[in-house]
Amino acid sequence: MSLTVVGSVAFDAVETPSAKRDRMLGGAATHFALAASFFDHVNVVGVVGDDFSAEDEAVLTAHKIDTTDIEHVAGGKTFFWSGRYHDNMNSRDTLDTQLNVFETFEPKLSEASKNAETLFLANIVPAIQLSVLEQCEQATFTAVDSMDLWINIAKDDLLKVIAKVDCIILNDEEIEMLTGEGTIVSAARALLEMGPSIVVAKQGKYGAGVITKEGSFWVPAFPLHEVSDPTGAGDSFAGGFVGYIAAHPERPITLEVLRRAMAYGTAVASFNVEEFGTERVARLTGPEIIERVKELAAITQFDGDQPITLRR
Amino acid sequence: MSLTVVGSVAFDAVETPSAKRDRMLGGAATHFALAASFFDHVNVVGVVGDDFSAEDEAVLTAHKIDTTDIEHVAGGKTFFWSGRYHDNMNSRDTLDTQLNVFETFEPKLSEASKNAETLFLANIVPAIQLSVLEQCEQATFTAVDSMDLWINIAKDDLLKVIAKVDCIILNDEEIEMLTGEGTIVSAARALLEMGPSIVVAKQGKYGAGVITKEGSFWVPAFPLHEVSDPTGAGDSFAGGFVGYIAAHPERPITLEVLRRAMAYGTAVASFNVEEFGTERVARLTGPEIIERVKELAAITQFDGDQPITLRR
Repeated sequence: MSLTVVGSVAFDAVETPSAKRDRMLGGAATHFALAASFFDHVNVVGVVGDDFSAEDEAVLTAHKIDTTDIEHVAGGKTFFWSGRYHDNMNSRDTLDTQLNVFETFEPKLSEASKNAETLFLANIVPAIQLSVLEQCEQATFTAVDSMDLWINIAKDDLLKVIAKVDCIILNDEEIEMLTGEGTIVSAARALLEMGPSIVVAKQGKYGAGVITKEGSFWVPAFPLHEVSDPTGAGDSFAGGFVGYIAAHPERPITLEVLRRAMAYGTAVASFNVEEFGTERVARLTGPEIIERVKELAAITQFDGDQPITLRR
Repeated sequence: MSLTVVGSVAFDAVETPSAKRDRMLGGAATHFALAASFFDHVNVVGVVGDDFSAEDEAVLTAHKIDTTDIEHVAGGKTFFWSGRYHDNMNSRDTLDTQLNVFETFEPKLSEASKNAETLFLANIVPAIQLSVLEQCEQATFTAVDSMDLWINIAKDDLLKVIAKVDCIILNDEEIEMLTGEGTIVSAARALLEMGPSIVVAKQGKYGAGVITKEGSFWVPAFPLHEVSDPTGAGDSFAGGFVGYIAAHPERPITLEVLRRAMAYGTAVASFNVEEFGTERVARLTGPEIIERVKELAAITQFDGDQPITLRR
């Protein structure tokens, strides 16, 4: 089986209250692919410039990620993003965005990428997501990420994408913004009427929830003593979540599979933020992920059936 | 057994995007006491003015809450607070605060209140919390709430309170502010060195976590389709949490008891926000709480031991 991700491959400059990096491999497709590669064969569809070195590519290929569909634009420069995190690490300012070759990106999918059973459309202009969806009719599970920018300036196209996918993965505030609803439950229910059968609400440092017509499941972020760099946490989460689903191909997807997919996404994301950029996930191992999922279960489980006598 | 709470009894005016109330019974001690009364006999220590009617008092006494130590100041007016919630209901503006009789409140504890096994110091000036603590030397479990205001203007007194209590219950951002630490885990660990053996981090609409030297436990807020009025949610949570601990008097408190206490606090708080003020909790029943705790378990549990083969 295989999983195709379409999205940004980038260089990031990140500043936190305690440290800074001027140039690291990043981008939504990069973080997603590294996370998902623990679970399934991953094809990355993206675009880079001359500044993307063999060493950068090796970060992906070392994890058996297929980089055939990463287009190299001669004379071009790779997408560059620069940001600064505030004290609580849950909010950030973008200091610089240079789209470069990403500005005119037209995803070109090989037959292998088109025929993947699972497709993840990382955050990118919705019209491109739509064109990729049309090329990947074989996929039995499709998921999409987006952002406030597209809700504001390309909502019609985004709604067309949403109508066609199985799953939407968004920040909780963006889900509320997209639907105009005041709680995440009412917003998710509105989205479930618009196409997807699965809605995942990312809640930043607080965790995430998944909502379907059958029920919901909520998991906290894994509590860490120190967070070095939150960049890519959401994409790592999505990579673990979608990767887990890709590796469990029985359809329809049960709520049991979704629960564990949420746990695996949470575990991988927690490693991502422990160090800068892709540093930690690049040397992560399967047993470490499995151990963290067990720890996550241990800190969230309680006995809801313990007898109690209340006073009224 | 019994539980004493010292704090504000108030009237609230609340405006949300969809509705408004000009005057409702409120205050931290009120919300806490109603929630805790499902679990233990509760004594409320507070102060009110002439405007506090027999009908207001009946909201408490109908739940077998002991109001002997609510002082009535002749010619005085009860503490009044007015606030407006923003669209996402997680932030609010205070429109008006009239301390009235609460400004010169000197808690007078009857022997029954002094001898309670459990003591909760709701959010109030730390010097008063300290004087109450000194009067309640019998208590085998003491917990305190506070707020950013006291961290800013009465930090020394607050630290003296913290040094003496078993448990501190605070918003996560206030815990980070109080300790100067950047993550809730490092901040909680710092607090555990300052006196308490239990730190509870309230995370607003996202849930809460409890951290001890033995481990931690995290629970999401119960997902609701509609939130009518978040006022008092934190105090209702504390009431359910502390009440559950009061009703399970084995000491030291195990992490198992803390987990369930967190679940019960979460359940009661979720009812509190379903309607305005004390409306919903005032007619809440034990079986409804127990049912919601079961539902909370159902939407947070997953099998962390399910075998999986990862690709590396």
